[in-house]
Amino acid sequence: MTPEPFPPDARVRSLRMRVRYGETDKMGVVYHPNFFRFFELGRTEYLRDAGLAYAELERRGFLLVVTEAAARFHANVGYDEEIVIRTTVHSMGRASLRFVYAVEDAAGRLLCDGSTELACVEAARRRPARLPPDVVSLLRSTQGHPTGFSSNMNESVT
Amino acid sequence: MTPEPFPPDARVRSLRMRVRYGETDKMGVVYHPNFFRFFELGRTEYLRDAGLAYAELERRGFLLVVTEAAARFHANVGYDEEIVIRTTVHSMGRASLRFVYAVEDAAGRLLCDGSTELACVEAARRRPARLPPDVVSLLRSTQGHPTGFSSNMNESVT
Amino acid sequence: MTPEPFPPDARVRSLRMRVRYGETDKMGVVYHPNFFRFFELGRTEYLRDAGLAYAELERRGFLLVVTEAAARFHANVGYDEEIVIRTTVHSMGRASLRFVYAVEDAAGRLLCDGSTELACVEAARRRPARLPPDVVSLLRSTQGHPTGFSSNMNESVT
Amino acid sequence: MTPEPFPPDARVRSLRMRVRYGETDKMGVVYHPNFFRFFELGRTEYLRDAGLAYAELERRGFLLVVTEAAARFHANVGYDEEIVIRTTVHSMGRASLRFVYAVEDAAGRLLCDGSTELACVEAARRRPARLPPDVVSLLRSTQGHPTGFSSNMNESVT
Repeated sequence: MTPEPFPPDARVRSLRMRVRYGETDKMGVVYHPNFFRFFELGRTEYLRDAGLAYAELERRGFLLVVTEAAARFHANVGYDEEIVIRTTVHSMGRASLRFVYAVEDAAGRLLCDGSTELACVEAARRRPARLPPDVVSLLRSTQGHPTGFSSNMNESVT
Repeated sequence: MTPEPFPPDARVRSLRMRVRYGETDKMGVVYHPNFFRFFELGRTEYLRDAGLAYAELERRGFLLVVTEAAARFHANVGYDEEIVIRTTVHSMGRASLRFVYAVEDAAGRLLCDGSTELACVEAARRRPARLPPDVVSLLRSTQGHPTGFSSNMNESVT
Repeated sequence: MTPEPFPPDARVRSLRMRVRYGETDKMGVVYHPNFFRFFELGRTEYLRDAGLAYAELERRGFLLVVTEAAARFHANVGYDEEIVIRTTVHSMGRASLRFVYAVEDAAGRLLCDGSTELACVEAARRRPARLPPDVVSLLRSTQGHPTGFSSNMNESVT
Repeated sequence: MTPEPFPPDARVRSLRMRVRYGETDKMGVVYHPNFFRFFELGRTEYLRDAGLAYAELERRGFLLVVTEAAARFHANVGYDEEIVIRTTVHSMGRASLRFVYAVEDAAGRLLCDGSTELACVEAARRRPARLPPDVVSLLRSTQGHPTGFSSNMNESVT
């Protein structure tokens, strides 16, 4: 699979974080498989903003299983630097979903882009399942809106 | 080493986060070594609040190297649940520092407590070094203040 | 808890591995929480050698849950270097088990030592449970034998 | 990028391992980004077998930096199960290298396949560099030999 470009009219969810010490490797920068972890964080917050906590979907008996993942790495980023994970839905099938991602530094420089294909699976029988209709509706409602949106924070200080 | 109790008059830094999918294991809860990663996140934000970005300390040629770590695990916590990492400085030596931590869930239930001993090391020669005087001053200024304090977020949404 | 010294007459299981790239951090050496992962690998192979695959114990409905963990870090070790994880059982209770560990480099230099306390838990109800009698017998049979022992490999080339 | 199929006449390096507890997630199977870690382990042993310890290449001042990575996930694999990572070189450029991978279970069932593109980089200046001639020669010598080959183990018991 080739990472897809961001659809021009996509609704994008941006998640801002700092790189953790344990996410670096001996090169002094983020260890590349961790970008796939960042993609997941972006996806989780995208879904939460759309009104769908992924944890809730699992409680309802569904899993979204990654069936394909691809990334291109353009520039390094070091410990404690701020990154922004931009996420959007690229396309939806009856039982699958494709997200695209762009990870940028605080200055907007592209560090990594990529995409993941997810299959909806019935947890009990580990078999493919149609995306629940309310999930489809929620995700459709996030498409076609070119502005970003924000929500409750994933991490904060009290 | 035995994890130290929180000093009653300590200034405590609280960092709130959600458990990431990749931080769980097949038991369905946080994989126990990840609590030591949480301790580090708590420590990093404690230092930042005190006016000391740890990344800056490394740029100045010093490392804070973990020489001892201990934790007790009291209760499990699952994916996407909110946790609060409470951190304070227990004691300071000439070339070392001891932090204590308590990780709680959103309801204030204790999940894990622990402590870490850190040695100040000169990075170039990998030899023990005295804590720089400004660091000692900054950390002293955070002690003896029983109220919590807050700061710029570690992670946010834009 | 204080890491316990190796009992002098203990049967020790030694597991030899190379440090993986992703186990290092920007200091260029193993990221300290990963030593707790090494402890677990040592423990798993200790149990397998005693005739008890931990995965099998979980299939029988029991979990061994880490309730305390402690380590002292004595020296660094870098990428691709060989390490040896030495593991033994320190003591057994009715529903708990304490392992001690020493991680050394190929030259026998001590890098890290530590210990973990594990509680036996009934998986279905997440409640403490007595160690199954056959597990107690197997583990007793590994104690009091001062020589090392070896077994099928954890990783190999075909 | 699309994962490339194994060249039919490729020399393949097979690395056999067991899935670690900490490599699983709450689905009870390997957390998908860890397959990119497995790819790296396969690549490292491929290079070592060819006579080139990657650690040695870094000591000579070169890095092999992952610039693209892609994987398809076909089946799950659980804790303590044996997996085999099959690795080969797909193609070489003047300053880059493409590896392809297939991860199988002990019965030969395909779990995941993928590929990574690596750029040779001069570490000191972080600039692209030609692959050193001896590296090119070593890697060429591993191509066009349809049989597998084996070497010193990555992990063993003593």
